Amino acid sequence: MTAKSRISLLMTGNELMSGDTVDSNSALIARALAESNLQPDMKITTGDDRDLLHESIAQLCKSSDVLIVNGGLGPTADDLTAEILAELAGTELHEHPGAREHVETWCQRRGIEANQSNLKQAFVPRGATLVENPVGSAVGFAIDIYRCRVIATPGVPSELKAMLPSVLERTRERTGGETAPILRLQTFGIGESTIQQRVNQMPDWPMEVELGFRAGMPQLELKLRVESEHQIPAQQACLERLTESFGDHIIGTGDATLAQALQQVLRDQGKTLVTAESCTGGTIASMMTREAGSSAVFHAGYVTYANHVKTALLGVSEADLEEHGAVSEPVVRQMLLGALDRSGADIGVAVSGIAGPDGGTDDKPVGTVWLAWGTTDEVRTRKVVIPGSRQLFQTLVSAAGLDLVRRQLLGLPREPHYFARQAL
Amino acid sequence: MTAKSRISLLMTGNELMSGDTVDSNSALIARALAESNLQPDMKITTGDDRDLLHESIAQLCKSSDVLIVNGGLGPTADDLTAEILAELAGTELHEHPGAREHVETWCQRRGIEANQSNLKQAFVPRGATLVENPVGSAVGFAIDIYRCRVIATPGVPSELKAMLPSVLERTRERTGGETAPILRLQTFGIGESTIQQRVNQMPDWPMEVELGFRAGMPQLELKLRVESEHQIPAQQACLERLTESFGDHIIGTGDATLAQALQQVLRDQGKTLVTAESCTGGTIASMMTREAGSSAVFHAGYVTYANHVKTALLGVSEADLEEHGAVSEPVVRQMLLGALDRSGADIGVAVSGIAGPDGGTDDKPVGTVWLAWGTTDEVRTRKVVIPGSRQLFQTLVSAAGLDLVRRQLLGLPREPHYFARQAL
Repeated sequence: MTAKSRISLLMTGNELMSGDTVDSNSALIARALAESNLQPDMKITTGDDRDLLHESIAQLCKSSDVLIVNGGLGPTADDLTAEILAELAGTELHEHPGAREHVETWCQRRGIEANQSNLKQAFVPRGATLVENPVGSAVGFAIDIYRCRVIATPGVPSELKAMLPSVLERTRERTGGETAPILRLQTFGIGESTIQQRVNQMPDWPMEVELGFRAGMPQLELKLRVESEHQIPAQQACLERLTESFGDHIIGTGDATLAQALQQVLRDQGKTLVTAESCTGGTIASMMTREAGSSAVFHAGYVTYANHVKTALLGVSEADLEEHGAVSEPVVRQMLLGALDRSGADIGVAVSGIAGPDGGTDDKPVGTVWLAWGTTDEVRTRKVVIPGSRQLFQTLVSAAGLDLVRRQLLGLPREPHYFARQAL
Repeated sequence: MTAKSRISLLMTGNELMSGDTVDSNSALIARALAESNLQPDMKITTGDDRDLLHESIAQLCKSSDVLIVNGGLGPTADDLTAEILAELAGTELHEHPGAREHVETWCQRRGIEANQSNLKQAFVPRGATLVENPVGSAVGFAIDIYRCRVIATPGVPSELKAMLPSVLERTRERTGGETAPILRLQTFGIGESTIQQRVNQMPDWPMEVELGFRAGMPQLELKLRVESEHQIPAQQACLERLTESFGDHIIGTGDATLAQALQQVLRDQGKTLVTAESCTGGTIASMMTREAGSSAVFHAGYVTYANHVKTALLGVSEADLEEHGAVSEPVVRQMLLGALDRSGADIGVAVSGIAGPDGGTDDKPVGTVWLAWGTTDEVRTRKVVIPGSRQLFQTLVSAAGLDLVRRQLLGLPREPHYFARQAL
């Protein structure tokens, strides 16, 4: 390996090689590095194999300025990271007083006596400096090997996450790299290619602001990245332009979810929501209640999967079910009005569609869904078609339901992009 | 790198290094290899960087018997895999007639003309043999480099998945390894350590059957692995022993889910289910309806998050709500009976608990939940405590609800393990 990789990752753990665990830690690290416009060039993953670990770490130390090692810091015999790093640094493991104190305090807080396994975690290579672990018993540490700054971190995701600010600081001591906060926007209902096309047509998009995407389900994350803090005004200018173009599709910043956004609007307006779900079968209610604080704005939901239940629970006309079918405008309208009436909620959403894989017809193919939303005084309805798997359909329809109520409450004048396309 | 890694993986793609995508492909490959008792020893991941790719592939070819390369086979300029493999094999890219036919057929089926980008995918290293892609436009191929069998596969997960049987066949041509199907069991409500302890205490567990675990949420997967087909009888004997010990916790084989298992039992018995959810807020209903075919056995669900809604929708006594609180035996019992009565369903489940993070008291801490399940004639109730995050709580309580109905329908005599522990 002759090329210089500035930053490398070494992930270790048998569970990573057996396929039993999907490695999400390296994405966590990469996303943290991205906050300083840094990116790993190479990642090696191995099991808890002494020879392979030794060779891989040696190789990466020779080719990197910074190597972040993740895993193998636990208390058991197959946790080899500290030992191998000591060997490569030409030193030995010693009990670090700060690490010993950390382990003892951690055990005390849990009302347990520190045993030999716990205390093994206080041994780090001589010369290493500690990287605090605010969550778990294993300390992280940093040590230089072959002029490479090696930072050892534990494999438990919650512990790694808590340590990332310190890891980033130690990395930047070596690489430089200014923290230029990435502005992350959560959007719903408008696609990556549409957004990219609109941005391409903006004549004065500043060169120094890079637009990136991260596809989620059901949301799409937009990232506005700049190189330094001086460019934050340009970042803000871009945000304004995006907001002008499709601000009604922007749910919020950071990790905002549709359910959180809707909860906030309902709170602000002192209103409550009711749901009446057929094809989504409780998923809209589940998305709402997954967020803490939902009990203030969400009191009742109906899952009316069968036709006779739509009639019995929500008063949907049997004649309309017969004449128009369950997936129809009159039926979702009556589901909504029935739910509003029976629950006393201020605003609601009702959906009825064909989730598949069976049940489609020429007239109403799998993926067809009718939505109704609004208040007793102002009911809106719409049909959209969302082809794809059953679960994709349920997730997208549920998200659209939350989005449409959010839009109505906010009085957003524009129709969502997915109406123009008649699809999501 | 001097050690011999029998099987290595090389994953390529900028999205894997930026943290925007979590690499699930390597777990897919590892799980497929495990079916033949094979496991990768090392994995290198890099972006679409020519030098790093070249060096990494060269290194892995020298140290491996088989190298599976994933990604970089697409139609764009940054898809470099075929080109680099040709260089390393000391040959050149040429248009493979079979690959050309594959691309053209693929385009025809979509009613499009094959353009230059599509046709780039027909170029593979001279001497390579094709690995069929039944799903996408890019063919895979196999070629030997430094006595290492290199198998190139596309990065799109659905395409990779469809190609895995062929990839496995090509791997086994080089490594040997008998296919000995892993027996996978899905369990719920009993922990890894409990199971391991019970197995340790079985005096006659056959040496040749290896027990493995894969932690899922809410289920735990058990794997019974053997080395050859001759040992399948021993595998079956182990299954019998596990079934004797905790068969009531075994949901099914393969990828079975609790909701699927319950749907099947309901179908077999011609019965329907109703749900009445407070703290899980629609998650039980959502889990049921996520599975195709649920409309036959699940007609109605109630989400009664607020107290007044429990009274209005399900007839829960205001006096009992006042006296015992919403998280109490009388209230879940009345929720269940109200739901059964109003929906006409045969069997039901009701839950009321404190999902947190707020709302706990000394008497009823966050994580406390009352469950009621059964029929009008036979109502059972139970309190359990499930500490942890809100979402973990909702998922586990929902799964327990499905499990308890399943147990009652099947007439399983034993109490679930999580009752003895009063926790999940």
